[in-house]
Amino acid sequence: MPDLNVVRLITRKRDGGELAADDIEALVAAYTAGDVPDYQMAAFLMAAFLRGLSDDETVALTRAMLHSGTVLDLSDVPGVKVDKHSTGGVGDKVSLILAPMVAACQVPVPMISGRGLGHTGGTLDKLEAIPGFDVGLSIERYREVLGEVGAVLIGQTGEIAPADKLLYALRDVTGTVESIPLIAASILSKKLAEGIDALVLDVKAGRGAFMKDQTRARQLAETLVRVGRGFGTPTVALLTQMDVPLGRAIGNGPETAEAVRILKEETPAGGPCDDVIEVTLALAGEMLHLGGASETPEAGRGLAAAALRDGWSFGVLQEIVEAQGGDVDALDDPDSLMGEPVATVTADESGFVTDIDPLALGYAAVDLGAGRAKKEDDVDPKAGFVLHKKPGEPVEAGETIAQIYASDPDRADTEAVRAAFTIGAAPPAPRPLLLDRFDGTGWGGGTGEEHEGTG
Amino acid sequence: MPDLNVVRLITRKRDGGELAADDIEALVAAYTAGDVPDYQMAAFLMAAFLRGLSDDETVALTRAMLHSGTVLDLSDVPGVKVDKHSTGGVGDKVSLILAPMVAACQVPVPMISGRGLGHTGGTLDKLEAIPGFDVGLSIERYREVLGEVGAVLIGQTGEIAPADKLLYALRDVTGTVESIPLIAASILSKKLAEGIDALVLDVKAGRGAFMKDQTRARQLAETLVRVGRGFGTPTVALLTQMDVPLGRAIGNGPETAEAVRILKEETPAGGPCDDVIEVTLALAGEMLHLGGASETPEAGRGLAAAALRDGWSFGVLQEIVEAQGGDVDALDDPDSLMGEPVATVTADESGFVTDIDPLALGYAAVDLGAGRAKKEDDVDPKAGFVLHKKPGEPVEAGETIAQIYASDPDRADTEAVRAAFTIGAAPPAPRPLLLDRFDGTGWGGGTGEEHEGTG
Repeated sequence: MPDLNVVRLITRKRDGGELAADDIEALVAAYTAGDVPDYQMAAFLMAAFLRGLSDDETVALTRAMLHSGTVLDLSDVPGVKVDKHSTGGVGDKVSLILAPMVAACQVPVPMISGRGLGHTGGTLDKLEAIPGFDVGLSIERYREVLGEVGAVLIGQTGEIAPADKLLYALRDVTGTVESIPLIAASILSKKLAEGIDALVLDVKAGRGAFMKDQTRARQLAETLVRVGRGFGTPTVALLTQMDVPLGRAIGNGPETAEAVRILKEETPAGGPCDDVIEVTLALAGEMLHLGGASETPEAGRGLAAAALRDGWSFGVLQEIVEAQGGDVDALDDPDSLMGEPVATVTADESGFVTDIDPLALGYAAVDLGAGRAKKEDDVDPKAGFVLHKKPGEPVEAGETIAQIYASDPDRADTEAVRAAFTIGAAPPAPRPLLLDRFDGTGWGGGTGEEHEGTG
Repeated sequence: MPDLNVVRLITRKRDGGELAADDIEALVAAYTAGDVPDYQMAAFLMAAFLRGLSDDETVALTRAMLHSGTVLDLSDVPGVKVDKHSTGGVGDKVSLILAPMVAACQVPVPMISGRGLGHTGGTLDKLEAIPGFDVGLSIERYREVLGEVGAVLIGQTGEIAPADKLLYALRDVTGTVESIPLIAASILSKKLAEGIDALVLDVKAGRGAFMKDQTRARQLAETLVRVGRGFGTPTVALLTQMDVPLGRAIGNGPETAEAVRILKEETPAGGPCDDVIEVTLALAGEMLHLGGASETPEAGRGLAAAALRDGWSFGVLQEIVEAQGGDVDALDDPDSLMGEPVATVTADESGFVTDIDPLALGYAAVDLGAGRAKKEDDVDPKAGFVLHKKPGEPVEAGETIAQIYASDPDRADTEAVRAAFTIGAAPPAPRPLLLDRFDGTGWGGGTGEEHEGTG
């Protein structure tokens, strides 16, 4: 590193200048190698947080993080490999439905997911609610399952983007998490390392999302799409509403059970989990379009809906579970994934459910054991909530509005769940679910239709 | 530290909020104790750099740094103890003249100084050009010399503001040096720990100063005065010009020799070192006024001028040198402090000296061995330059414009010194030397008169 003057790079960014791609790549490489101390990187991250990074800088940062570890080459697997990333919400079990659905339409889905942290869940924890399901496949086996089944879901290995792991841990303790370019580089470095050919993003906006403010969520979507395309990877973002929980189930086992029921058409479109299905079909439409299976996203959505109705999607889920060592029989009895309810939450008064606070339920789920307050925490796969009422639905005083599931009944806090509900005299105004679409050329032009969340 | 949430403090500052004094004091105390890691403090410093600190926050930071070590109590030494701090310039040997001058007028001067770093020199290095002079007195001996002689000049001990040492070292490597509140807290924490009752600041503005921009220099002066006064310590700042070197000598031995000659009235007011004398008398007037020796700064200036003319000031310097173990006889022969010139720099053309670049000479002095590129470097006490011509003075082609002094003649670079001079057809416009004065109530109202630098 004789030529890397870290203080010069820090001060240039501090003063609002733009760094050369080579400088950013050298900085990240030296940091990952342990040649730049944490305190210099912390100062750089805070300067980047407050001064921002240009798209070119974000591309360079992403590239440096991406190339800090293994970049998978899946070119020997036929087809256009497409993945989806969600910025995270409460009740978001979309990946469990989406991956088999898209694979059922012949577009391969190589998905590397994360664990839950804070109020949002993680796909890996949900998959592990299926007994025996192994999210720690070797890269070799990952490639095999993708080739054989068409979809595979694993966790980030130490070989994938190690710089992201180091930088994320540092951002977490230095107040530099909520930066759009830093978030974008973190997401994209991991996703691009998977060996994908195209990417669809579910950027959530609202109280239960990481980005509570829609303007910031739009900026994140734009940055993700522009930077993804900066790598030559076709990338589309949907902006979706996360003001209320998605679907009825919150918590790993309950959410996996809900996803299985949706795939088995036990709760079809127009039913109680219509919001989950709507978001999933919209994302599937984009993936199938990018994957070359349809002329338009709308046509892709039609294919996906057919693959759901015909049971093909559920068939692929069974194959994935089988290939990854999980108990396929558990899928026959989704209730087994969540056990019996340990407590019932009832309405205090009659009227309409006007609101459900997703953050309150997210944190209540953590308290129940369904999530992690700290990275090291274990999760209870059976813990969670099922909402019997959602906004817009009428309710009588004393009627059940939610049930609580947990391995440890003593952790159930009915009051915390009840407090997340608001009941009023009249139903609330509808909340659009699919808010907008960005494909790099502009906003709109996507699914178009405004869709109300279930209930 | 169970209640100190460092990330919360970082993010509040990052988002432009104001921190409570207790929080800042707890943060600095925990950092100094090693309970907050460098990377969190680095993120905090960058956030403070970019978001700024209010006066209340700067007072709290200064207080925390001040109380991280010993705070001297000089209340048993009679009189109002007054010190001066300069933000540093090229050729600034003012402290060596000022301390004995003010003490000669019966105002005690307890002065803790620093070493040179980069292009600016340090008072300690200049004092050490006097053989035997000990800047490392114990606190006990410091107190004794102050009581007996009326002035004492030592270096910062490990007991004084250790948090400042740690924070400065971290700022140096994280691009967070040039922040006005951080600079103010660093300066004031050390000065207030000396046991002073009042403080005069020489804030330099111009090419050879730390603050090249006069607007920033004014902001620094205002912050220093407001924060000093926030501690109940009467504080006044003079804004002085540092666009050309101060005086004729640059380098430790040459500058000490120049200071001695001024004190011996070998180069009286109106002579070749008039600029040094002007700045010194202006600062002395403020110190004598704050020290209660005169009704006004102007009257103080008159007292100081008399103490220079009458030789009292030189007498006090002799006493200081004697008390601090230095060779008093060396003061009889200032040439002995700098040796013989090893090279002569001549003018390429005839005309007037229109400009001398202080930064260029400061860096040339470092190359010659007079200063430090790194903290660990030794300095050559005899190394430096004497300028035979200053801006405004006529010069003939081939005439001597400067002489170079050094223990190692091979390091003399006449070309670098010549390149710092600009010679033109006409004399330049006069440059005011004493630019302004700030006493906490507003700018101006001080020495008033605009004074041209010598030559």
